[in-house]
Amino acid sequence: MSDSMRIAITGASGRMGQTLISLAAADDRFKLTGAIERAGHDWIGRDVGEAMGGAASGVIVTDDADAALSETDAVIDFTAPAATVQFADAAAKAGIVHVIGTTGMTEGDIGLLARFADRATIIRAGNMSLGVNLLVQLTKRVAASLDDDYDIEVIEAHHNKKVDAPSGTALMLGEAAAEGRGVSLKEVSDRGRDGITGARKRGDIGFTAIRGGDIIGEHDVMFAAAGERIILRHVASDRSVFARGALKAALWGKGRSPGEYDMLDVLGLAESD
Amino acid sequence: MSDSMRIAITGASGRMGQTLISLAAADDRFKLTGAIERAGHDWIGRDVGEAMGGAASGVIVTDDADAALSETDAVIDFTAPAATVQFADAAAKAGIVHVIGTTGMTEGDIGLLARFADRATIIRAGNMSLGVNLLVQLTKRVAASLDDDYDIEVIEAHHNKKVDAPSGTALMLGEAAAEGRGVSLKEVSDRGRDGITGARKRGDIGFTAIRGGDIIGEHDVMFAAAGERIILRHVASDRSVFARGALKAALWGKGRSPGEYDMLDVLGLAESD
Amino acid sequence: MSDSMRIAITGASGRMGQTLISLAAADDRFKLTGAIERAGHDWIGRDVGEAMGGAASGVIVTDDADAALSETDAVIDFTAPAATVQFADAAAKAGIVHVIGTTGMTEGDIGLLARFADRATIIRAGNMSLGVNLLVQLTKRVAASLDDDYDIEVIEAHHNKKVDAPSGTALMLGEAAAEGRGVSLKEVSDRGRDGITGARKRGDIGFTAIRGGDIIGEHDVMFAAAGERIILRHVASDRSVFARGALKAALWGKGRSPGEYDMLDVLGLAESD
Amino acid sequence: MSDSMRIAITGASGRMGQTLISLAAADDRFKLTGAIERAGHDWIGRDVGEAMGGAASGVIVTDDADAALSETDAVIDFTAPAATVQFADAAAKAGIVHVIGTTGMTEGDIGLLARFADRATIIRAGNMSLGVNLLVQLTKRVAASLDDDYDIEVIEAHHNKKVDAPSGTALMLGEAAAEGRGVSLKEVSDRGRDGITGARKRGDIGFTAIRGGDIIGEHDVMFAAAGERIILRHVASDRSVFARGALKAALWGKGRSPGEYDMLDVLGLAESD
Repeated sequence: MSDSMRIAITGASGRMGQTLISLAAADDRFKLTGAIERAGHDWIGRDVGEAMGGAASGVIVTDDADAALSETDAVIDFTAPAATVQFADAAAKAGIVHVIGTTGMTEGDIGLLARFADRATIIRAGNMSLGVNLLVQLTKRVAASLDDDYDIEVIEAHHNKKVDAPSGTALMLGEAAAEGRGVSLKEVSDRGRDGITGARKRGDIGFTAIRGGDIIGEHDVMFAAAGERIILRHVASDRSVFARGALKAALWGKGRSPGEYDMLDVLGLAESD
Repeated sequence: MSDSMRIAITGASGRMGQTLISLAAADDRFKLTGAIERAGHDWIGRDVGEAMGGAASGVIVTDDADAALSETDAVIDFTAPAATVQFADAAAKAGIVHVIGTTGMTEGDIGLLARFADRATIIRAGNMSLGVNLLVQLTKRVAASLDDDYDIEVIEAHHNKKVDAPSGTALMLGEAAAEGRGVSLKEVSDRGRDGITGARKRGDIGFTAIRGGDIIGEHDVMFAAAGERIILRHVASDRSVFARGALKAALWGKGRSPGEYDMLDVLGLAESD
Repeated sequence: MSDSMRIAITGASGRMGQTLISLAAADDRFKLTGAIERAGHDWIGRDVGEAMGGAASGVIVTDDADAALSETDAVIDFTAPAATVQFADAAAKAGIVHVIGTTGMTEGDIGLLARFADRATIIRAGNMSLGVNLLVQLTKRVAASLDDDYDIEVIEAHHNKKVDAPSGTALMLGEAAAEGRGVSLKEVSDRGRDGITGARKRGDIGFTAIRGGDIIGEHDVMFAAAGERIILRHVASDRSVFARGALKAALWGKGRSPGEYDMLDVLGLAESD
Repeated sequence: MSDSMRIAITGASGRMGQTLISLAAADDRFKLTGAIERAGHDWIGRDVGEAMGGAASGVIVTDDADAALSETDAVIDFTAPAATVQFADAAAKAGIVHVIGTTGMTEGDIGLLARFADRATIIRAGNMSLGVNLLVQLTKRVAASLDDDYDIEVIEAHHNKKVDAPSGTALMLGEAAAEGRGVSLKEVSDRGRDGITGARKRGDIGFTAIRGGDIIGEHDVMFAAAGERIILRHVASDRSVFARGALKAALWGKGRSPGEYDMLDVLGLAESD
């Protein structure tokens, strides 16, 4: 389509890069124009479609980010903090949308990004799933609407390889609930419930972690009172949700003023808080 | 407590009236000061606690609403439209809070109520459950945030005596979803799915009704896309939730300016829409 | 009805006694013939229907168990161990069905009961809910059918007043799963999961406890493998399920040979194990 | 491992064939010894690992089933009825295990298979998922244990491309429930509930179909009575469950006498019915 959005993908050979390329190729709202890898990678110079084991795409993998970003409308970037800062520089020069799903960024890295936000439209989130971001927002909101008659429990389920409990997303949901209530999560958190616990303490936020099979990620936030329960639930059934969220963010960023945004902006939820 | 709210209950002998009286009596934020029944009812003149089969309460059942309402801070009213209009008149004279859970009110009845809203603090809702009202609000909001990539399904479960499907609350949730999306529910509603249906039509809002046992009422609004689902769920486990919502509304109305309010105001959700 | 079963209830004034009396009175498969309380109780000599705050039932509360049991087909008994042993003696003399839901019985108490099983038809269970007993049975069976590729998790939810975790029923389900697998629960039990736990250990049986509101009792046994999950779920929505199970047991016992039985016999599940 | 099972896969280039090959290659209980395609297929003569876009496996794709089956312990076959009958002939000549997941077989086809069951160990099922087969069995069993006080509802959820409702598996579960109760599903089936339905008819088996997103397949069988519910639930999270079930069947068949078996035999559930 003539009005499809031109898009470049960094870390093209990685699992997330390949997922992004496949999804963008199958969606006529996008036209893939760039596939970027680090210098020396053996995909450099190859057609990215062929490198992925499929048909030719017409896009050659490159390590020249500046060139690739000068001929696109947006770049989606799930790489590493240092690389992301460099891509932000290139995106600013090109004046395009930079969608960032890179994790592990320090305060310092984020400070560096800010310098490019006067020319790039930066959309960044720790979790690019629309649904999880929405759930965080709803949790804060519901917690603010209901009083301590409603006991809050965050229940998550993940695959049997996961090494920590509760999940980072569960803790993020707990933080949102605590913020909605105006309390400190640290003071009301109830984890690892087992044995003679006594009655549940009013105002506590409880966490439970279920582990088994290959569950990708399920999160429930339950508000339980006498006579009723409200449950906000998210089920991830495919790791591609993170890629889909990033693509949606790119579309949202089209024509948007330079600046720093997050998924709440993309969802249209940021204003009301 | 010296600062407890004085409260009167209409329809004192009915199931909802008795539930309200029991709950208010057990909650030191309230002081029961009135129990109202229609003229001629055999509870008139009896102590309402004893009439309910328990201990004396010190409150005598009366049919004189004007007198009862002149000595209270709020009246909670789940009766019938004509009676409710009269109670609104009495509440206006007394300048108190009038919480209305009466169903079946016509546009005409509601118009009559409006005349009393300059002196009474009227809080009225078709469903007094906090949770259901919250769910309606969240549904509208989420539907507005997500596009048609997210298929919306409203799933409800009720007891085996229920004669209609889907439930009124399910339809209310469907309306909220349609409104959030800016479409007409009538045009996108998909009900009674059975047989060779063809693929689901993009943009449809589906309804399914589960019936069995003594399920009081469970409602799910599911937003399902490729890779993820968000589910907003309400479970009613006790019919007293409607009474509890009404009591909460009464407390919220204390000291509030006269006017017309609903449960979204009570929940602090009305402003953001 | 002429062929309804005559039934007597012990502990008639207690919550469970009253529930049993109400349910039996509303069910034409039963005819209430006895209501028993301990000597000195102020209900003795009163009509039990009236004592319960309702209409007269024609049954006078008595402390003479031998007399009451000689004129009935079954007695349902949720009292205390010492009383239950005495009722078993009376039931044996009368040659009737004795349904026992009394908890806290020691091995010694149970040994005493056995002496009466040559003349009384004794049906005893720690949990009289049909559904929970069925779930225990199914859990054992499924655990025996599936190998360690299926991770087992027992998840329970209860009200915020509950002081221990996991629930006794959850542990019973865990025992059934361990037995089905031929392992010792003690060696594979994983409770209170929190923090850096490492990957889930193959063969473990996990427990999680959710607490909130007035949840009566919900139990899930999940068997999760790569690609699929089986979940066996029980939801108690009314404490009357225990009374209903006892009444069903009484009917099942009618005409049955004296002996000791449990709810698995009543459910027709005992033979297959 | 020296005692791993030798295995051949038919329809090697198909989605199910490739899944089987990948799973068997990653599991040291198996040694892939054959990959079969129809004569003329362009994979014939190529290494199957390389044809799948990965590393060489040492197994060359062949159209000579007799040869391939003479050097293996088992063949797994998800092809078409006519091909399956021919493979059964070859499996009988070789005296090996033949696992059949082929669908659409007529009574005639099945009759032909029977002729080979004196020399081949044939394991055949309409649905190779362990979990679904187990659920069918449990449903029949629970339905036989509980009376009409328990309302049965079969609830299924599938992706938005599915064209029929309820799913074949839901109907299979309904049949199992009806069989357990000793009734005809046709006479008690309640589908497409919508509008003024009247109260639920005692003894009915209800079906509801949820559609949305990319849900692979979820099935609940609910037994709901006054005060409690039992829910038997299956969630498929990956289409590979069918391949996994077939591999498990192959292992089970090792050393088993020739004959006709199904997944209930594999699960050890067949005897008790």
